Amino acid sequence: MNAELITIGDEILIGQIVDSNSAWMAQVLNDVGINVSQISSISDSSDHIIEALELSSKRSDIILITGGLGPTKDDITKATLCSYFNTELKMNNEMLEHVKCLFDSLGSELLEVNRKQAEVPANCDALINQKGTAPGLWFENKSKIYVALPGVPYEMKALMKEQVIPRLQKQFKLPHIVHKTILTQGVGESFLAEMISNWEASLDKEAIKLAYLPSAGTVRLRLSTSGHEKDELVKRVERKAKELSELIHPHIYGEQTDTLQGVVGKLLAKYKKTLSTAESCTGGYIAHLLTTVAGSSAYYIGSVIAYSNTIKERELQIDPGIIESAGTVSEEVVEAMAQSIRLRYGTDYAIACSGIAGPGGGTEEKPVGSVWICISSDKCVKTKLFKFGTHRGRTIRMTALTALNMLRNLIIDESHCPSD
Amino acid sequence: MNAELITIGDEILIGQIVDSNSAWMAQVLNDVGINVSQISSISDSSDHIIEALELSSKRSDIILITGGLGPTKDDITKATLCSYFNTELKMNNEMLEHVKCLFDSLGSELLEVNRKQAEVPANCDALINQKGTAPGLWFENKSKIYVALPGVPYEMKALMKEQVIPRLQKQFKLPHIVHKTILTQGVGESFLAEMISNWEASLDKEAIKLAYLPSAGTVRLRLSTSGHEKDELVKRVERKAKELSELIHPHIYGEQTDTLQGVVGKLLAKYKKTLSTAESCTGGYIAHLLTTVAGSSAYYIGSVIAYSNTIKERELQIDPGIIESAGTVSEEVVEAMAQSIRLRYGTDYAIACSGIAGPGGGTEEKPVGSVWICISSDKCVKTKLFKFGTHRGRTIRMTALTALNMLRNLIIDESHCPSD
Repeated sequence: MNAELITIGDEILIGQIVDSNSAWMAQVLNDVGINVSQISSISDSSDHIIEALELSSKRSDIILITGGLGPTKDDITKATLCSYFNTELKMNNEMLEHVKCLFDSLGSELLEVNRKQAEVPANCDALINQKGTAPGLWFENKSKIYVALPGVPYEMKALMKEQVIPRLQKQFKLPHIVHKTILTQGVGESFLAEMISNWEASLDKEAIKLAYLPSAGTVRLRLSTSGHEKDELVKRVERKAKELSELIHPHIYGEQTDTLQGVVGKLLAKYKKTLSTAESCTGGYIAHLLTTVAGSSAYYIGSVIAYSNTIKERELQIDPGIIESAGTVSEEVVEAMAQSIRLRYGTDYAIACSGIAGPGGGTEEKPVGSVWICISSDKCVKTKLFKFGTHRGRTIRMTALTALNMLRNLIIDESHCPSD
Repeated sequence: MNAELITIGDEILIGQIVDSNSAWMAQVLNDVGINVSQISSISDSSDHIIEALELSSKRSDIILITGGLGPTKDDITKATLCSYFNTELKMNNEMLEHVKCLFDSLGSELLEVNRKQAEVPANCDALINQKGTAPGLWFENKSKIYVALPGVPYEMKALMKEQVIPRLQKQFKLPHIVHKTILTQGVGESFLAEMISNWEASLDKEAIKLAYLPSAGTVRLRLSTSGHEKDELVKRVERKAKELSELIHPHIYGEQTDTLQGVVGKLLAKYKKTLSTAESCTGGYIAHLLTTVAGSSAYYIGSVIAYSNTIKERELQIDPGIIESAGTVSEEVVEAMAQSIRLRYGTDYAIACSGIAGPGGGTEEKPVGSVWICISSDKCVKTKLFKFGTHRGRTIRMTALTALNMLRNLIIDESHCPSD
């Protein structure tokens, strides 16, 4: 079963935005055994859209289109689909109800352009967009399936997950593709490859593929295989994943779609522990990651973001003499920050960090990218220096992920040896 | 002059990597007046590559291909181009010298696969790749130009900037393309469209195109036109952009690649003012955005992230009685938070917010997505209630951008009427 993705919109063709929707869609389609054979980005032009539809329907069974479904004049996908399928727009009452509800809940007035969002081509099934006003459109024509989705990522993603994928799975007997992703933090791709080279060589005869998916601070290792006997596939992949885990156990923080902040949150909730943070160079990013998790208020109390030294001294009681002698980016300061916030906010654990995110502020002794991280509990203080390189955004992200992983390890250690 | 981009490689089709090369290439091509009419990602398959070359050469004048030029077995672009142009590979001595030099400088041994990198199709001009071993390949055939480039981003970028773009500019009299993007916050796409509908109707006769580019909380409006008289084009676009600005002035926070945190940072730096924040529902995201800006320590002092009520009471001196009577998500609490952090951290401005990010915690009176934002200075306090809907991540982002825009407006207001 082959699918093709067509994104419509000049913003991709002039390089104003990167097409990350297609990568996400390709991933979820692959996950259910649908192969993506081409991804095309084309302009907001009716002729171009029709040509792309004709060509892709010759090559593929399923054509997924994103973009151009909005309420403004440059959104021409719906009209073009009408002309391609030789049909016309009709008001869909169910969609109109949905649009009205959405505007009511936001306390906004419903404009004529918004009403028009509920008009859909007469030959399609409209798919309710729970996150917005533009419905998805599902067409079947000459044994091909065409689905048009809004280009807004979270609207498209919800429609794909909740409606398009389940309907494709129902309609076709797809092969099973089993993926298992092991998530690691703190070790580079090439070092991981060295550690697991013998194991990796054994994958061929099991018909399992391994992909390395690196991003700042983490490497995801994805095992995948396909076939028709789901139970057998799962068993085979789980067995190899277990072998892998034994080889690189200390570096693994989770699997599949886990996030470090989610894993840390679950541990804190499980052991009924609380956390506070004192951030300098990360400027709130650790707190932000922690609070992206729904329910984080159960264990995350709050933070002092001490971006200036005055706040470090006044709000975290860091001795100005220590800042003077050891510098703001030092073991002494970061330890004092962690202990101070933990006691002040009355939490079981604390994270603190201080570093030079750059691009300015580096010295020969402490170059840009130098970061001290401290994790503390009432029994233990762990402090470590890292060098994350010269990219500001990357250093902030690496610091946050490294700190969360240090905390994860500490919580696990302490939960295994409950002292006094 | 139309160009088309073709990226070759399964890693994009399985969603393993996002195709950011194409966005970069589209940008630099647009900058020199070459319109990109289609971007296609296709598989490492000879048939598929040949089909893509045939189709794109019918539509476009210039075809730029990336990927599949490496030394391994799945790199089939060179052989496929030979078969497409009915020619064969020939050793290019200049390229061989270059590959040898590169390996010498790394102290590595030259393998047979590396030597083969210097073989190029007999009918092409080879372009030296200063950053790697795979040369760029420049073909001219039936008045179309085909260029194959390596997929490694920094190799491709160097070849594009140093060789491909200058050669295209020399070979063609290219039109100028002028873009101007106006950035707005706080008004939906359809409301903007209503406000500017008459003005939008006047764009046709000026040969200017308008695109709406919405994302959570912001809409970018992009004007573009092309022609041969650069000065005239710039004037025409600037004139229409000025008309647009007058229509929706209060909603515009910047232009081109500005960010709200960058614009706010520049204003604070310009007027030598400082800022602190007290965040509840955004959990550090406002601080994070502010500190993504290099040099933000000049004006951003720090924050209390008061995720729990205890911290609001203890660290921000919020009267527990107010929390009891008005609730945490209330005008009274958010105002007290802003005033408290501003005085405590000794800054000119403060931002505070308190809301229900969800998914839990909503009530009939205060549904999920209800957020109070307060901006304060020593002269003024502005407090407002928003309803951002049920998506947690989106509510956090909308809150942060809205707060930054409220602050931007306040700084501008106060800088125009310097009181006492």
